Amino acid sequence: MTDYRAVAAAVMARRPLAESLFEELVRLSRDPTAGVTRASYSDEENRIHDSFGRAAATLGLAVERDAAANTYMTRAGRDRKAKQIVIGSHLDSVKQGGNFDGAAGVVAGLMACAALQDLGVAPRCDISVMGVRAEESAWFGVSYIGSRAALGVLPDGALDARRVDSGRTLAEHIRAAGGAPEAIAAHQRRLGPDNTRCFLELHIEQGPLLDRDGIPVGIVMGIPGDFRFPDARVVGAYDHVGLLRSYRHDAVVAASEFACALDALWAEWDAAERPMAFTIGQFTTDPAQHAMTKVPGELRFTLDMRTYEPELLAELEAKTLAIVRSIEQRRGVRFELGHTARAAVGRMDPGIRDKFESIARDLAIPTRRLGSPASHDAAAFAAAGVPTAMMFVRNTNGSHNPDEAMTIDDFLQATAILTGWLADAVA
Amino acid sequence: MTDYRAVAAAVMARRPLAESLFEELVRLSRDPTAGVTRASYSDEENRIHDSFGRAAATLGLAVERDAAANTYMTRAGRDRKAKQIVIGSHLDSVKQGGNFDGAAGVVAGLMACAALQDLGVAPRCDISVMGVRAEESAWFGVSYIGSRAALGVLPDGALDARRVDSGRTLAEHIRAAGGAPEAIAAHQRRLGPDNTRCFLELHIEQGPLLDRDGIPVGIVMGIPGDFRFPDARVVGAYDHVGLLRSYRHDAVVAASEFACALDALWAEWDAAERPMAFTIGQFTTDPAQHAMTKVPGELRFTLDMRTYEPELLAELEAKTLAIVRSIEQRRGVRFELGHTARAAVGRMDPGIRDKFESIARDLAIPTRRLGSPASHDAAAFAAAGVPTAMMFVRNTNGSHNPDEAMTIDDFLQATAILTGWLADAVA
Repeated sequence: MTDYRAVAAAVMARRPLAESLFEELVRLSRDPTAGVTRASYSDEENRIHDSFGRAAATLGLAVERDAAANTYMTRAGRDRKAKQIVIGSHLDSVKQGGNFDGAAGVVAGLMACAALQDLGVAPRCDISVMGVRAEESAWFGVSYIGSRAALGVLPDGALDARRVDSGRTLAEHIRAAGGAPEAIAAHQRRLGPDNTRCFLELHIEQGPLLDRDGIPVGIVMGIPGDFRFPDARVVGAYDHVGLLRSYRHDAVVAASEFACALDALWAEWDAAERPMAFTIGQFTTDPAQHAMTKVPGELRFTLDMRTYEPELLAELEAKTLAIVRSIEQRRGVRFELGHTARAAVGRMDPGIRDKFESIARDLAIPTRRLGSPASHDAAAFAAAGVPTAMMFVRNTNGSHNPDEAMTIDDFLQATAILTGWLADAVA
Repeated sequence: MTDYRAVAAAVMARRPLAESLFEELVRLSRDPTAGVTRASYSDEENRIHDSFGRAAATLGLAVERDAAANTYMTRAGRDRKAKQIVIGSHLDSVKQGGNFDGAAGVVAGLMACAALQDLGVAPRCDISVMGVRAEESAWFGVSYIGSRAALGVLPDGALDARRVDSGRTLAEHIRAAGGAPEAIAAHQRRLGPDNTRCFLELHIEQGPLLDRDGIPVGIVMGIPGDFRFPDARVVGAYDHVGLLRSYRHDAVVAASEFACALDALWAEWDAAERPMAFTIGQFTTDPAQHAMTKVPGELRFTLDMRTYEPELLAELEAKTLAIVRSIEQRRGVRFELGHTARAAVGRMDPGIRDKFESIARDLAIPTRRLGSPASHDAAAFAAAGVPTAMMFVRNTNGSHNPDEAMTIDDFLQATAILTGWLADAVA
């Protein structure tokens, strides 16, 4: 019977390790303008993988890379053939992001290994802390690159995607980071349900609920799947400002009606307590055509739409396409939606989830259940059939911005729950 | 009693002059990509003023420039002290515009002078054909520059506006074209109600009504006034895709609601037969911030809103601001509207208008009355208290694009009406 208080005390005693790793993140990837920037497969991301690898080696963990240049920092188990436990998250960030999104999950894994070692635990199976590459879709327009590559399920074509800033392909970037894109293309995999007992991810909350409710730790009930239009546009007709309303094919008005219809749909689902979200990250008329007195004939946009159940996701997609068709017919415009990117719904393992909650109760750490409106690497593992669980740490000011604010106290509480679960699992 | 048929025959006989002037326009300002481009105060615009001036001199007209480098091509009257008649339109174009918008009105003036001369008419007062500078607001974000400068009413500050392509100020461009910006700044004027009997403008129709109804000539009932936000934006908050709806301050959704509310207002006014129009020429999120998974925190836009009566224009502006306030309150965003540009409503002279119609009936030329949803130099003259009239010529494919299509036959019919009116007026 694990003494969770002793485990928690060992985690708290390792506070300097956590602090030094978070400082290292800032030091190696500070953005000259604001926050931190670690583009997927950038020099900054490479440096963090190297630096965390060195810290892990100091803790006695074995350090390896896979074909996607993901980093695995492994405490060997008594039975090397037993299914391993993987703890991890991503080490890239959005442009001018904050210091905790992603990286906190890797720091938590290293902290857990250090605490178990301090307690003299010799684990039954391997515990592998995974620094995942390229989770943020902002860079290549593809999400979960590192985790899907490790699972052998990166979609065909993704290796040809170009990074928005460098213009170089994902394959080139992976090779430059020491990886092997041809192995990824051949769907070779390092991880899967056959060799992985579970995947555990700790992440800052990106919404405001924990902060609002004064609760340090969230237990994640599920990760939404999504469909995305990364390169869509509304095509109407450019016309003179003098044209009457009934003759116009105004791309701005048509696109605005689309955005408002999706917002109304969301309000309706909210009222019915059916969680969903849509985000239009880009919404732009053509700068080469801008004039105050020209009816706009084109508007480019992106769409990300998400929910927690596959059936609801299909329903949302059907409703979105119905809205498109209705606007096309009424306004004489054409929606060119381009290709659709998809991410499967990520279901969380109920057994691990419940155990997290009971350990938290033992440690008198307040938790609440919540959905993860955002996508995470955990969703890729869940989709691949690996039992998966996530915890969120309270965070103010949202994420994907320089003002992310997670306290080390909250982080240590979540890490204590994680380490308590591990201590049980590897006993 | 004027013989309108003889006048019309004289106009028809001058068809080669019209054709050669329209060809000259294409020759001197063909855009390498499509259509013609004559930026305000560009080399192309300068060349057309020079070329039309040479053609006018060949017809025996005196050629002068004013402080804004507008060109006046004048047939001297028997009484040089009598109020002059000014016929004109603008010689600039939008980027990749068509060959008739603006220029047709100058060609019509030269044709009328040539036809009257062919008929041996010695006019009672001066007839001045005015090649107006810089009517298109696309270049400096300011409309009616040439006509308002000639009338001494160019607003303070306009001379500091920068041309979107060159980045140089209006004052610099005017000086380079041989004008005198300091005289404009001092509101010195060449034209006004004291010395100008009327201003007549022929222009292609920019809407589809004449083409739809199979009518070659439109008699303009009025020119709308407008208010404009040339540099407005909606400021919300950038957030992560995971943020719940009620916590978002989504600039795209807020701006879309604005566009849809204006569209609904327009539909309502249409149903009530209250003419208006709004155009959002630019509608853009910040490219530096684009990500599929980032809630957009800012959207820049322009707005042009117009109607035919000053009271209705004030009502529209109040309604627009009420929509803005309502969205701000409900969505927690801020509209920064920037400066408001304004153009006064242009009322057409009923006497001239009615005479145009009766001459057309005499000549068996079908006409219809219509509003001019677009702005024109004529509006500046009307606002300055100069009696003003406009005719539209049938045109397919809209204007401000390379596909403008006015036939010379239709143009000659409208010019015959104009010349008939002139023959009466200067008898």
